[in-house]
Amino acid sequence: MDTNLKQTSAANGREEPQVTIKTSMKALVYHGPGVKSLDAMPKPQIQAPTDAIVRVTKTTICGTDLHILKGDVSSCAPGRILGHEGVGIIDSVGAGVTAFKAGDHVLISCISACGKCEYCRKQMFSHCTTGGWILGNTIDGTQAEYVRTPYADNSLYPIPAGADEEALVMLSDILPTGFECGVLNGKVQPGSSVAIVGSGPIGLAALLTAQFYSPAQIIMIDLDDNRLEVAERFGATQSVNSSDGKATEAVMKLTNGRGVDTAIEAVGIPATFELCETLIAPGGTIANIGVHGTKVDLHLESLWDRNLTITTRLVDTVSTPMLLKLVGADRIDPTRLITHHFALDHILDAYETFGNAAKTKALKVIINT
Amino acid sequence: MDTNLKQTSAANGREEPQVTIKTSMKALVYHGPGVKSLDAMPKPQIQAPTDAIVRVTKTTICGTDLHILKGDVSSCAPGRILGHEGVGIIDSVGAGVTAFKAGDHVLISCISACGKCEYCRKQMFSHCTTGGWILGNTIDGTQAEYVRTPYADNSLYPIPAGADEEALVMLSDILPTGFECGVLNGKVQPGSSVAIVGSGPIGLAALLTAQFYSPAQIIMIDLDDNRLEVAERFGATQSVNSSDGKATEAVMKLTNGRGVDTAIEAVGIPATFELCETLIAPGGTIANIGVHGTKVDLHLESLWDRNLTITTRLVDTVSTPMLLKLVGADRIDPTRLITHHFALDHILDAYETFGNAAKTKALKVIINT
Amino acid sequence: MDTNLKQTSAANGREEPQVTIKTSMKALVYHGPGVKSLDAMPKPQIQAPTDAIVRVTKTTICGTDLHILKGDVSSCAPGRILGHEGVGIIDSVGAGVTAFKAGDHVLISCISACGKCEYCRKQMFSHCTTGGWILGNTIDGTQAEYVRTPYADNSLYPIPAGADEEALVMLSDILPTGFECGVLNGKVQPGSSVAIVGSGPIGLAALLTAQFYSPAQIIMIDLDDNRLEVAERFGATQSVNSSDGKATEAVMKLTNGRGVDTAIEAVGIPATFELCETLIAPGGTIANIGVHGTKVDLHLESLWDRNLTITTRLVDTVSTPMLLKLVGADRIDPTRLITHHFALDHILDAYETFGNAAKTKALKVIINT
Amino acid sequence: MDTNLKQTSAANGREEPQVTIKTSMKALVYHGPGVKSLDAMPKPQIQAPTDAIVRVTKTTICGTDLHILKGDVSSCAPGRILGHEGVGIIDSVGAGVTAFKAGDHVLISCISACGKCEYCRKQMFSHCTTGGWILGNTIDGTQAEYVRTPYADNSLYPIPAGADEEALVMLSDILPTGFECGVLNGKVQPGSSVAIVGSGPIGLAALLTAQFYSPAQIIMIDLDDNRLEVAERFGATQSVNSSDGKATEAVMKLTNGRGVDTAIEAVGIPATFELCETLIAPGGTIANIGVHGTKVDLHLESLWDRNLTITTRLVDTVSTPMLLKLVGADRIDPTRLITHHFALDHILDAYETFGNAAKTKALKVIINT
Repeated sequence: MDTNLKQTSAANGREEPQVTIKTSMKALVYHGPGVKSLDAMPKPQIQAPTDAIVRVTKTTICGTDLHILKGDVSSCAPGRILGHEGVGIIDSVGAGVTAFKAGDHVLISCISACGKCEYCRKQMFSHCTTGGWILGNTIDGTQAEYVRTPYADNSLYPIPAGADEEALVMLSDILPTGFECGVLNGKVQPGSSVAIVGSGPIGLAALLTAQFYSPAQIIMIDLDDNRLEVAERFGATQSVNSSDGKATEAVMKLTNGRGVDTAIEAVGIPATFELCETLIAPGGTIANIGVHGTKVDLHLESLWDRNLTITTRLVDTVSTPMLLKLVGADRIDPTRLITHHFALDHILDAYETFGNAAKTKALKVIINT
Repeated sequence: MDTNLKQTSAANGREEPQVTIKTSMKALVYHGPGVKSLDAMPKPQIQAPTDAIVRVTKTTICGTDLHILKGDVSSCAPGRILGHEGVGIIDSVGAGVTAFKAGDHVLISCISACGKCEYCRKQMFSHCTTGGWILGNTIDGTQAEYVRTPYADNSLYPIPAGADEEALVMLSDILPTGFECGVLNGKVQPGSSVAIVGSGPIGLAALLTAQFYSPAQIIMIDLDDNRLEVAERFGATQSVNSSDGKATEAVMKLTNGRGVDTAIEAVGIPATFELCETLIAPGGTIANIGVHGTKVDLHLESLWDRNLTITTRLVDTVSTPMLLKLVGADRIDPTRLITHHFALDHILDAYETFGNAAKTKALKVIINT
Repeated sequence: MDTNLKQTSAANGREEPQVTIKTSMKALVYHGPGVKSLDAMPKPQIQAPTDAIVRVTKTTICGTDLHILKGDVSSCAPGRILGHEGVGIIDSVGAGVTAFKAGDHVLISCISACGKCEYCRKQMFSHCTTGGWILGNTIDGTQAEYVRTPYADNSLYPIPAGADEEALVMLSDILPTGFECGVLNGKVQPGSSVAIVGSGPIGLAALLTAQFYSPAQIIMIDLDDNRLEVAERFGATQSVNSSDGKATEAVMKLTNGRGVDTAIEAVGIPATFELCETLIAPGGTIANIGVHGTKVDLHLESLWDRNLTITTRLVDTVSTPMLLKLVGADRIDPTRLITHHFALDHILDAYETFGNAAKTKALKVIINT
Repeated sequence: MDTNLKQTSAANGREEPQVTIKTSMKALVYHGPGVKSLDAMPKPQIQAPTDAIVRVTKTTICGTDLHILKGDVSSCAPGRILGHEGVGIIDSVGAGVTAFKAGDHVLISCISACGKCEYCRKQMFSHCTTGGWILGNTIDGTQAEYVRTPYADNSLYPIPAGADEEALVMLSDILPTGFECGVLNGKVQPGSSVAIVGSGPIGLAALLTAQFYSPAQIIMIDLDDNRLEVAERFGATQSVNSSDGKATEAVMKLTNGRGVDTAIEAVGIPATFELCETLIAPGGTIANIGVHGTKVDLHLESLWDRNLTITTRLVDTVSTPMLLKLVGADRIDPTRLITHHFALDHILDAYETFGNAAKTKALKVIINT
């Protein structure tokens, strides 16, 4: 594979915009269930006045990318460049883009928002009628040297000078997802009790951001002792290995028989969701983050009178500006989620490592493009 | 059956407290699945300083009473006097009761609240650790000439002079239930769209109280055209007979393909709950009122990314003071829910009428004791 | 004055877009304190890709226009075309406008919103960093045959076919202002008590929209018996003429000595704001709508422990879509606010009538352009 | 002075209930403006079934006690035992008290709540119609060996075994006040910016509890560099000495010209409240904690269109259970507020020290009784 990339170096530690005009680029392409490859693809072009082309400098792999590769995401057709996370440098902008110009360092949101439709007007960017989660799904994504980002003004965020750009890759998706779908929807409050079912990357993102609200208890539940150890280092007050089938009893014991105020589902299978139904206190909230492939049993025969709230959510990324502020203020260190680094040329290895997390202990992997 | 009741008459239109001391009274007693009778029972006595004894003047029958009679409510043992709704006159109060005295006309709440426990302190009276729904369930209820009401100061409400006491029987349970579990939990808002699945008494109570918030659309769904006609008279903007299995399509057509902002489940079976899952708009809320006997399928495989909220609730009766104000201000007429009247001696007929609502067109029946 | 306007007629009851190209138009121009005239002005042109040019069909006069004419609004320079309300037909759109095309009938919002800035992203359009209240203030306004509307996609609203366009002029400013600044900020709730100080057009707009929430009491306070009569017709439950200086006593009597849950200030002078301070109940909210020219006394020596909330707000027009739905559903009739009609050629008479409301009993005047 | 106190010692580190019956006790009595003394007073007796008598083990002095001694609090008559904070051991309870028994270690809330009235039912305990702030105000208080606490079940809190009781004295008033009146009312949020005007004990309590919500910035403002140093140790991100009259400019510089999202007034004079009016961002909230003796200027001529919220509040102590959980979970260390210790016999010295805080650097003083 040969691309006409000419690397430039910059004394100031930030790479300068390229001067050689590229027409081809390397990209990770989905070719149908189980098949992906690093291909030479045409460099994307501005298609609408509100588009920007971003030279991706760092990207990562999401659990959702693995779902696509299993063939579970019907909206994503073969031939698609994957990836919906990353940071980069503006290469060019359409005539309607007013907030960014070539050379600006930007955070790419996994959600594209037109800023005009009924849903955008109620801050529900996830359901933007012409945007939402389209990157690396219905349009080409970020696991490439360049990406076209629609609605740039509402979908990119300026990176403050001096920021750790690698850390900010965690703000494209995983941290806002853990925070919005888990913590905000779960109404975590000072002094409250929280159980997080699933101590993978997204459960850990919920764990890190739940601490913004100072709950008194965060109980982490998983089948893997290694992941539970990580959770305790990340701030869990207690952990429960659920492999003995007695997680509910353990949580009840830890909460004086009451159950938790908030249960966050961060796996996406019936067993874990139904576990949440058994460990929630009256008046509590079950906040679903997991991507589910099948229906679950909702035991209304025992829950109808428990004054519960159950929520689902695709991340809206409304919290991205807030998360940028808290990273800037050193109130959260997103790099704790990063375990491995790869060059784009080795992105297949990155997938291998990320896909075997139980063995590799991978959380998030950074791909330098 | 013979009780030593001595009726008194009062020139002012309100009955005076009795002077003859009663030791026995008539009461509707549950004797196990399918068996009930109007029995002579001992008049209840003050047991705790916070108790009151209320001479019941009017009571009614709830769908939950029918559930008990089917044997579905295991907490309710044979021998129990049924009923958790009604108005009456204070007969006597315990030493700790400060808000009421003999002769006061009171509304009896279906929920008893100690006012002290963790749940009462967060206004979740339904889960009061020593109260909640106990009347006509774990202690004797209101379908009797007298009832002992625990925690009288927090569980009875003074009836303003001149109020229509019959109307207020609807404030014991059905109107706060429709309002809190359906309308408040469902976040009905000015201009929003609402579907109510089930046009029985509780669905109609939700319909009446939803109008407090001026939604633009209230679509009523039921299998019975008669009930839907009632709903249109009560303020539904549209109605859908779901017997053709095409209710979802009908609702989508009525909402320009969007679905409704709020779906209120007012039946209590899987089919109706699952109907709510299909007609709710992204970002919407499904508020369950129905008493369910079996689990339902929650289709997270299609709902995980729809930004939904699902709620369950046993009524807390926190809205009772507000409802009293709105009845006093003529903003709602609860008597629209009342279709039949019976004397206590004919309460078995009242059960017959209420239990055959499809035929009798009964909504709520008043029993004068 | 001569403009090259060529009126066209349309069989379908909606006027067709003009075919003759206009280069001049009639407009009401502010020439400094106390001076205004109907002048020939150049027809506005698209200046930014997000602009639209709207042929104004109906506009109105706002109390704020009178403030400008007194010289109280320093941001508004002589030479400015006044007016920030109206409906019209799209004449042309910039290249970046995607939601509208020539010929579309639109409602013009008094607030222009870029949809991208920090404030727009939190739905605080009033403080849009490049928009906000600019029409008829820092850029030319709607009291003209044509107006340039910046950020058209986020600042215009499509008018549904068949709507009463005259009614919708009330949705440019006065109804969202009464609703957002008074009712929403004032947290009007079912069963609550509300006092509205000032029964002019804006107080009446608060009165009409407060009823969306079914408060038990809405007490209207003014010096003018005629306006109070209007208020009672519009839904006030009680009215108080405050000319005797005893309004507080009257409100206390009407609320059993408690005061009101919500006090809405709809005048804009110290006396009326300070009246709100005295008639508010503990835990209540004072919502300011009035445009104030001087400071007021806030009596914290008596209010510091009263658990009050005081709010100020420039309308964000976030409620415009909701109001459109409620007008469409016949839940509110905005035409009740319209008392007079004028042709644009007689707009000086319209100002005269509107400016002498005590005598003319004018509320809102419609100007057909 | 002679009391018949017989001290007992206990091996378990907790004092046992006394066995000798006391009839007199030592207490700090207010004798009118400027006059106080440590007197022998009758031991209080149960007066209502809901009362408890608590043997006070630790109490403290509040700024409000100094206000009383200046004669500023007209509700507090000469002869009153002062004090509304403390921990102790239940000596005896009335017949209606169900949650506590003799020997229980309890936290005394500064607010007494009947749990039944309109205000208690909406969690506004501060305005309980027969309670509220009565201790050391309209009834005898806690700066004594014993205190009668009305409505014990709703006004005392059980102290968990093993808790640091001295720390919990800070939960009687100062921490819930800082949290509820400042942080909750001020809507402090993750990533938001906060200014606290006044770095005395109550401002520091707001500072400590604001951190429950992880704001990005907490700017502390005071005239005293020593207090600002303390604030920085307690978690302020920046501090501003306002003695040069340029605090607003400094805050604007620290917030990129925007102002803060939340301004907390923690002094109680016009100058500091009016400072808050100048440093608040559009859409922000000014939360008043200070006890004010005179009116302030509210500059509505510049604030009417700024979309502000201003709140006042007497603490409701609704957050006490939450604070107990967070102290138990080591999420906050209240002892950081304690600078001095005295025996009850030296309470006059304690007043001297607390009243000269600028010189003594006193924050809160503990009095062991």
